[in-house]
Amino acid sequence: MSAQKILIIGGVAAGPKAAARARRMAPDAEITIVERGSLVSYAGCGMPFYVAGEVSKFEHLFETTYGVIRDAGYFWREKGCKLLTRTEAKSIDRTKKEVLVENLETGEQYNLPYDKLVLATGASPVIPPIEGIDLKGVHRLNHPDDAEAIKKHIAEREVDEVIVVGSGLIGLEVADAVAKLHLFTTVLELQDQVLPGLLDHDLAEWLSAKLEEAGVEFRFGQKASRIKGDEDGFVTGVVTDSEELEGQLVVVAVGVRPNTELAKQAGLEIGETGAIAINEYLQTSDPDIYALGDCVENTHLVSGKKVYVPLASTANRQGRVVGDNVTGGNTKFKGILGTGVLHVMEYNVGRTGLGEKQAKDLGYSVLTALNNTFDRTHYHPDHGMMMMKYIIDDKTGRLLGAQGQGLGDVIKRIDVLATAITYGATVDEISDLDLSYAPPFSTPIDVAQHTANIARNKMSGIAQCIGAAELKKKMETDEDFVILDVRTDEQFNTRQLKDNRVRLVVLGDLRERINEIPRDKELVVICALGTRSYEAFRTLKGAGFEDVKYLEAGLQGWPYEL
Amino acid sequence: MSAQKILIIGGVAAGPKAAARARRMAPDAEITIVERGSLVSYAGCGMPFYVAGEVSKFEHLFETTYGVIRDAGYFWREKGCKLLTRTEAKSIDRTKKEVLVENLETGEQYNLPYDKLVLATGASPVIPPIEGIDLKGVHRLNHPDDAEAIKKHIAEREVDEVIVVGSGLIGLEVADAVAKLHLFTTVLELQDQVLPGLLDHDLAEWLSAKLEEAGVEFRFGQKASRIKGDEDGFVTGVVTDSEELEGQLVVVAVGVRPNTELAKQAGLEIGETGAIAINEYLQTSDPDIYALGDCVENTHLVSGKKVYVPLASTANRQGRVVGDNVTGGNTKFKGILGTGVLHVMEYNVGRTGLGEKQAKDLGYSVLTALNNTFDRTHYHPDHGMMMMKYIIDDKTGRLLGAQGQGLGDVIKRIDVLATAITYGATVDEISDLDLSYAPPFSTPIDVAQHTANIARNKMSGIAQCIGAAELKKKMETDEDFVILDVRTDEQFNTRQLKDNRVRLVVLGDLRERINEIPRDKELVVICALGTRSYEAFRTLKGAGFEDVKYLEAGLQGWPYEL
Repeated sequence: MSAQKILIIGGVAAGPKAAARARRMAPDAEITIVERGSLVSYAGCGMPFYVAGEVSKFEHLFETTYGVIRDAGYFWREKGCKLLTRTEAKSIDRTKKEVLVENLETGEQYNLPYDKLVLATGASPVIPPIEGIDLKGVHRLNHPDDAEAIKKHIAEREVDEVIVVGSGLIGLEVADAVAKLHLFTTVLELQDQVLPGLLDHDLAEWLSAKLEEAGVEFRFGQKASRIKGDEDGFVTGVVTDSEELEGQLVVVAVGVRPNTELAKQAGLEIGETGAIAINEYLQTSDPDIYALGDCVENTHLVSGKKVYVPLASTANRQGRVVGDNVTGGNTKFKGILGTGVLHVMEYNVGRTGLGEKQAKDLGYSVLTALNNTFDRTHYHPDHGMMMMKYIIDDKTGRLLGAQGQGLGDVIKRIDVLATAITYGATVDEISDLDLSYAPPFSTPIDVAQHTANIARNKMSGIAQCIGAAELKKKMETDEDFVILDVRTDEQFNTRQLKDNRVRLVVLGDLRERINEIPRDKELVVICALGTRSYEAFRTLKGAGFEDVKYLEAGLQGWPYEL
Repeated sequence: MSAQKILIIGGVAAGPKAAARARRMAPDAEITIVERGSLVSYAGCGMPFYVAGEVSKFEHLFETTYGVIRDAGYFWREKGCKLLTRTEAKSIDRTKKEVLVENLETGEQYNLPYDKLVLATGASPVIPPIEGIDLKGVHRLNHPDDAEAIKKHIAEREVDEVIVVGSGLIGLEVADAVAKLHLFTTVLELQDQVLPGLLDHDLAEWLSAKLEEAGVEFRFGQKASRIKGDEDGFVTGVVTDSEELEGQLVVVAVGVRPNTELAKQAGLEIGETGAIAINEYLQTSDPDIYALGDCVENTHLVSGKKVYVPLASTANRQGRVVGDNVTGGNTKFKGILGTGVLHVMEYNVGRTGLGEKQAKDLGYSVLTALNNTFDRTHYHPDHGMMMMKYIIDDKTGRLLGAQGQGLGDVIKRIDVLATAITYGATVDEISDLDLSYAPPFSTPIDVAQHTANIARNKMSGIAQCIGAAELKKKMETDEDFVILDVRTDEQFNTRQLKDNRVRLVVLGDLRERINEIPRDKELVVICALGTRSYEAFRTLKGAGFEDVKYLEAGLQGWPYEL
């Protein structure tokens, strides 16, 4: 019997990972990777850092930790896998079990036989069909060549203003990178908020306000209708439906779509999201053909629905599973939570599980909890403020999703919560976790648990809150109600809500001065973080005040001007 | 009916937390806190940072996040709780439901009645009964007064050398603090390793080697038999069973014991660990008396056994539960995992769940996995090396415990794993988690998952390892075996195992040079982290080599001299 032939289409992330695992499991297998481009196994997620100059050398994006470049020689010598670059898979013959490929250098076409075929064809950037998209200085950032081209353009041309089209993960990472180069950056977003796929609107409002303070400009709800250029074919700006923006570099980051042509040609099943459909073993509708990474759809572990969320983490985890299964293994890949994180202008941002709207659309009775607090003891010099939002099934107390942002260590909590959500944790259970505590890392009751406690208080009726958006709307009416600020005099004098319905009663004076507070008016208690206002809320409720609520996440979470 | 009387003995952490929660739940209750000392609600865990000068002002250890000092006035004004400082509880009359207290300033004794009594009596430092323990300059660090006294001593006396007795969490935090003040620090430890309650021996060996490189000296297996002093009564050093150490400041940190006198006097049940026994609702054997914090024992969530692990995190979580239950609630506290972390000399160190020996003693068939790797993408400037160890039930694949240390973000993984262990996660499930990935935070397959994958490889027999201690022992014999180093020439020339059985075959050359490697000898493959040696191990196994293993965690995890 001849050696098992494993053929892998795609050499960026998922493909090489599957190849390496397959090799370790089946030393005799003949493993071939076919890649259309000339670069393989590159750190796609590292490109913004290379543009920003934080990754100093282009090669670092292709190197192993021990400094060896991952090229065809590397794959052959270290992994025992044959790598064919600049080779494109044209079509699959499922009956003969062979793939027609073309050497893009020579034009030569030939067939590669397989016993098991792996599709790791990835995704391609969406390129909006607008005028000027081909001008010089209009780029994407989906391939190392894009990163090189952007750097070259900045180095060679006089670039002062950059326009980023799209405010998803890649858009914001690009904005962050060019802002670090002290270029004036404007981000154009079709939707009415930043990171529409990641953050709920309330968090997004706060984040974009902070990013604007840090120097990045946003244009929400605007569509790029045309890209302008000069007589030499260089970009000079973007025309939207409502204004003209100047820019000598434009980066288009409006998402990606799965590369499914090959799968479609072969008659493999395409899922409802438009990506390749796979089962738990990552098999396509043909059991000898596997697919993984950015070209497939996945099952969301909370909703059970199919989703298309192309991420390097998923691609790599799936690589191991496919490596097992094409060599006789029986490993399952259960699904994803859509966990996504980024670092932008000193802010850590992340999300896992369902968003609020998603959860509501799925029919959950949703309760949310918003928390604004320090990520570690306030007396430790490393502490940072952060905000967390929980999306909870009100009926069971189960956490459906979580989002966070801020200077503090949001990412740790996102990973803890991704783990908790995987096990169907309720907020009671999260509050009970034995998480670590030491002053350089956390508070005795961790933010993740504190947020769970806020949720528990809301669920049991012990806490009644109002959100920033709702309070702002209320302030815009001439309703007769009282905003009771319970911060210190000093804090109040520094920064306060500008509204003549605001009254200051410092928390420490509240019990004494409680008779000064009108019992016949609605009260909204506010403080900096939501801690004192909750305390005051409980005191007022205890004293028989009925129509009281407090501002969730406090003035630090207030995304509007003060 | 008169208001419910809640009396709380102890005003440091657990007591005030219980009081605050009780107040919010029951606005009419009469809540009284009795505290023997004059300071309350202080950040006990912040003291080492105050000694080190990282917390600039003493008051910061007593302040709220908004700068208000937590004293009797604060508790009355903001929390509506009566706080009696310098007041000691002498005895409990359970029949009359009253506590005899003494005003330590005036000597006056009187009774305080209760409906619900809460014991938050904390723990006291163990003071070894050795000569010289009362010399000036011999301190503990269990109370803010200790921190002040240490700072004063350093400021007023000529202190060049510090001796820390005990290498537990507090001992190491003290060593870290004084080392930051550029004082020469020696840590004396009775057992044969650092952090004996936290780390397994293999990790501890690595950590103490690193801390010694960073300038802290250790004396393991040595007992302080006497503390030396000069004619003015100031400390001059410590005499151990085998040497004399000079030191002008001695800090004794050999653990704490629960304060159970009051409970014992009242005839309440004391548990097998010597701390107060409680049920899930944190009730003592008298249902009207609750106990929490450093004076109680807890249930370990993995072993089901009672353990005494006094930590501020547990005390605070229990405070909320007691606050609920003394006001008619029905909240459970299920137990702990013994999660503990610290930051020492730039190293992050932590543990959750069972240690290897603990697990073996409990009868588990234990498999361990050791991983040494970067905490985030190696091309990102913030990356740091870290080591993780998993303790796994070999029969089920369930994770029983995890430990980590290094410059990288160990603490995030400890919290993720504490969460996973709570749900009985297996290593397969951990490998499957949808943890976050972006280059500034992690690698596409997170360290926590990578370590799980190593464990899975070992469980399935795909990987066979040798530990550093075992290899060292082997090298000390004259056994005939081959140590096959597969790193690059450059790495090999910089640093290598000094042994004439070492042979270098760079991983990339292994396939072509495989016939040079003897088939009749035992092979131990080594590299820097354990990644390439695993790859080489698989290649050799695939080529029919039978007696092969590789060095787990690589040379970076080698705790001995090279």
